[in-house]
Amino acid sequence: MTNDISTPAVVIDMMIAQRNIEKLQAHCDQHNIPLRPHIKTHKLPCMAKRQIQAGAIGITCQKIGEAEVMAQAGIEDILITYNILGQHKLDRLVRLSTKCRLSVVADNAHVVDGLAKTFAKAERPLEVLIECDTGAKRCGVQSAEEALVLGRLIHNASGLSLGGLMTYPPMGDQALVNNWLEKARNLLISKGLPCPKISNGGTPNMSRAQDVTIATEHRSGTYIYNDRSLIEAGLCRIEDCALSVKATIVSKPTKDRAVIDAGSKMLTSDLLGMEGFGLIKEAPDAKITSLSEEHGILDLSNTNWSPKVGDQIHIIPNHVCVVSNMVDYVYLVEPDKTIKAPVLARGLVT
Amino acid sequence: MTNDISTPAVVIDMMIAQRNIEKLQAHCDQHNIPLRPHIKTHKLPCMAKRQIQAGAIGITCQKIGEAEVMAQAGIEDILITYNILGQHKLDRLVRLSTKCRLSVVADNAHVVDGLAKTFAKAERPLEVLIECDTGAKRCGVQSAEEALVLGRLIHNASGLSLGGLMTYPPMGDQALVNNWLEKARNLLISKGLPCPKISNGGTPNMSRAQDVTIATEHRSGTYIYNDRSLIEAGLCRIEDCALSVKATIVSKPTKDRAVIDAGSKMLTSDLLGMEGFGLIKEAPDAKITSLSEEHGILDLSNTNWSPKVGDQIHIIPNHVCVVSNMVDYVYLVEPDKTIKAPVLARGLVT
Repeated sequence: MTNDISTPAVVIDMMIAQRNIEKLQAHCDQHNIPLRPHIKTHKLPCMAKRQIQAGAIGITCQKIGEAEVMAQAGIEDILITYNILGQHKLDRLVRLSTKCRLSVVADNAHVVDGLAKTFAKAERPLEVLIECDTGAKRCGVQSAEEALVLGRLIHNASGLSLGGLMTYPPMGDQALVNNWLEKARNLLISKGLPCPKISNGGTPNMSRAQDVTIATEHRSGTYIYNDRSLIEAGLCRIEDCALSVKATIVSKPTKDRAVIDAGSKMLTSDLLGMEGFGLIKEAPDAKITSLSEEHGILDLSNTNWSPKVGDQIHIIPNHVCVVSNMVDYVYLVEPDKTIKAPVLARGLVT
Repeated sequence: MTNDISTPAVVIDMMIAQRNIEKLQAHCDQHNIPLRPHIKTHKLPCMAKRQIQAGAIGITCQKIGEAEVMAQAGIEDILITYNILGQHKLDRLVRLSTKCRLSVVADNAHVVDGLAKTFAKAERPLEVLIECDTGAKRCGVQSAEEALVLGRLIHNASGLSLGGLMTYPPMGDQALVNNWLEKARNLLISKGLPCPKISNGGTPNMSRAQDVTIATEHRSGTYIYNDRSLIEAGLCRIEDCALSVKATIVSKPTKDRAVIDAGSKMLTSDLLGMEGFGLIKEAPDAKITSLSEEHGILDLSNTNWSPKVGDQIHIIPNHVCVVSNMVDYVYLVEPDKTIKAPVLARGLVT
């Protein structure tokens, strides 16, 4: 049925996606870790619903626009792991908070001030978690003491309730993350502040999520599709990758060079430290050496595979989350049918 | 007026874009080179119309979907510089050919066969140019002799007319490109084949387009906006860059680190050989050292600039064409008004 799909196209094997959903859920259930999947990877309400159906406690979004789409589709519990700034966004946040159980994060007083002023007049208080930089060096307060200062601001704001701590952790040292969060939580509690939730995350470390014993939930996104970066990290196999980019050989100028109709507009330039721009399922030893916007260049010099113009291939992207964001729709392949589904939460930058 | 724009957002200074359009057109007029702008950079019918209004002979598209949008908006002369394969696309091409003066390219017999069979029954023949690999090592026939073989196939197909040669040239050696094309043209003509058009392209070499004396037209895309890669190449100044990504400082976890709300979903991971992910107009000495999907990390260790949370900045992207493709709409800033314009030809992958 997928033979009719014009290339390039993003195709998703729903059997594999469902298996991936159930596998991580089973792992989390076994270790008593509530799972809150990050929808940035799929940006599809139908996938979020499958995750909830399997046992997830809610979802994570990175943008208000994503959360608006998911709430509209009936998802009831949404955490936006982002500092929200600007009155227009804050007003949208108030409206959103009437449609789902909403929580957000903050790592600085400016953000807390905006939330506090806007929600002072709202129907119910907004739950705010303190974002903590446990070593990933992105956002987050730098110490337990900074967490305490911000926690007091949140706790004392009439429109806000202090939800606890949240971190996007560095990969690798789970004990370090655990210690950081434990110290901050203990300081908050010792000063009379509540700290009911501790939200940890990341797909590369999901198999060891249970090692951050202090966490009350885990956020993970990429696991639903998996990708080449996770294969390289030894965390999944080719046959666990649900999403691939279907492409056609449009040119074969020389014996050693073929050109496909998927370029950076489909595969993106994300390398994540790897060589080449994706893994060709039909010929893992062929290399995608460079991309223009609409062309991908294949180096065939080290493979016996010899594709012809018109042949179709399937590529596992280096980084799957960014590929979902490139296309207006994806093809969901079930055993008995293929559905062309709009990626409703793509491109929602604000 | 742009203070009201929620970030991140793509904003375009229309005064600069118009100046860029007129500047390259004046250069081409001076050297008698017909200009056929590539719309992949802006993906906006209103910009294509400005280019035509300034004197361009038509436009270049890379995808049928882009050409469909442009024809629908009234653009009359469109070259699609891509090997078109697959019956669904070929059928769309027939319909498109009734709506504008259409031409395409081909670099192999498989593509010519598909075009020939489909257009055998069409109202008028489709013009096909032979794509030539003059050194850029992407698509294209490898020699004048290969061009002759393909030219005969096109010329002898009842539904097709041989339009001549097309190349996406390597940067740098204009004489080499000229010699390659001259040899192919002379061979075609010596064998009784027509070769009325020779289409050359590229923005980095546009100021020396006239050195490829054999070309009958030049295709250029990036010049309308310019970007950091062209600043680095010495081909434009910061004040010639029409497009910037407006972003907000959402976090400042340490003295040396700030975080903005523009990540790879806005700026893309395209480096084009440079360091960092864009040029901050307010602080060119600050570095955008890494991107997550929704976060950009700024290294402030080598700048006196000290932004606060809530401050807004403007970033000139490394590669502007791919940024246009990330957003559903852009803000067109005129002296007296700002228009939110849908990027009608974005994401049209087929």
